[in-house]
Amino acid sequence: MDIKRTGSGAWNSRAVVHNGVAYLSGLVADDKSLTVKQQTAQVLEKIDAVLAQLGTDKTKILSSVVYMADLGEKDAMNEAWMAWMDPAHPPARAAVGVTLTPGTAVEIMVQAAV
Amino acid sequence: MDIKRTGSGAWNSRAVVHNGVAYLSGLVADDKSLTVKQQTAQVLEKIDAVLAQLGTDKTKILSSVVYMADLGEKDAMNEAWMAWMDPAHPPARAAVGVTLTPGTAVEIMVQAAV
Amino acid sequence: MDIKRTGSGAWNSRAVVHNGVAYLSGLVADDKSLTVKQQTAQVLEKIDAVLAQLGTDKTKILSSVVYMADLGEKDAMNEAWMAWMDPAHPPARAAVGVTLTPGTAVEIMVQAAV
Repeated sequence: MDIKRTGSGAWNSRAVVHNGVAYLSGLVADDKSLTVKQQTAQVLEKIDAVLAQLGTDKTKILSSVVYMADLGEKDAMNEAWMAWMDPAHPPARAAVGVTLTPGTAVEIMVQAAV
Repeated sequence: MDIKRTGSGAWNSRAVVHNGVAYLSGLVADDKSLTVKQQTAQVLEKIDAVLAQLGTDKTKILSSVVYMADLGEKDAMNEAWMAWMDPAHPPARAAVGVTLTPGTAVEIMVQAAV
Repeated sequence: MDIKRTGSGAWNSRAVVHNGVAYLSGLVADDKSLTVKQQTAQVLEKIDAVLAQLGTDKTKILSSVVYMADLGEKDAMNEAWMAWMDPAHPPARAAVGVTLTPGTAVEIMVQAAV
């Protein structure tokens, strides 16, 4: 079975595709001065861009993990998430609080059908 | 490839099925007054129910992540886990300590063959 | 669809294979006296061994989550990661800080094509 990679860098690929599933890396916002909600929106835009590159989109996301630096900000994250998510196609999801690199409020890792 | 969802809500689906794999959301106990062991048992019952709805069961779980609010309680979680798990069909697993929503002791996310 | 397990123990299997994908458990170093970099190298050796047993290798890893006890040690972890990773085949990855069992600096969970 073929394996396709996109956005390969020093230690990971932005996405790896195998057998009809795209495995994306955990993506973060570039602008660390943004609020949690704004960082979430920026991450979701990045996910959209990677999925578009692979010929798929957010309606085909299968599963997601939302890693947050402060889970107390879950509501703010969810505002951006719900503004973005296609209500007819919600993925599986977990949202948990972890330590992220300084300034990063949210890191999101998804798997999508392609 | 078809994508099937079950238990779709405001921001996620309880499970998404694609290409013979069910991706479940992180599930938590409803009763936050329960002990870690009891919450774990309740989460595992929920997982059983979702898998049954999809026509599969715990013997076909492929992978799992157990998110715990206090990893020091891993033994208590494992007691419930081992009482539940089919010893002939253990899934892959990681168990890590994270921040969960207040009162939630354990959140479990699994992927299963359907 | 057939499900194959390897290294099955009391509460998990070291790996579960289904439909061309191997789901590995979170693996940790046995020697807790090692540095973060050394523990990472030891975990990656273990991953190599499990993949070899399944007839695959690190060039076919699809996705990975690196759980670290101290995300401030990410550079040390990355040194071992980059010495090991095949630069032509980088997997998707997220690295986050969580609580691990005492002495464990890093736990890595991967999925690979077989």
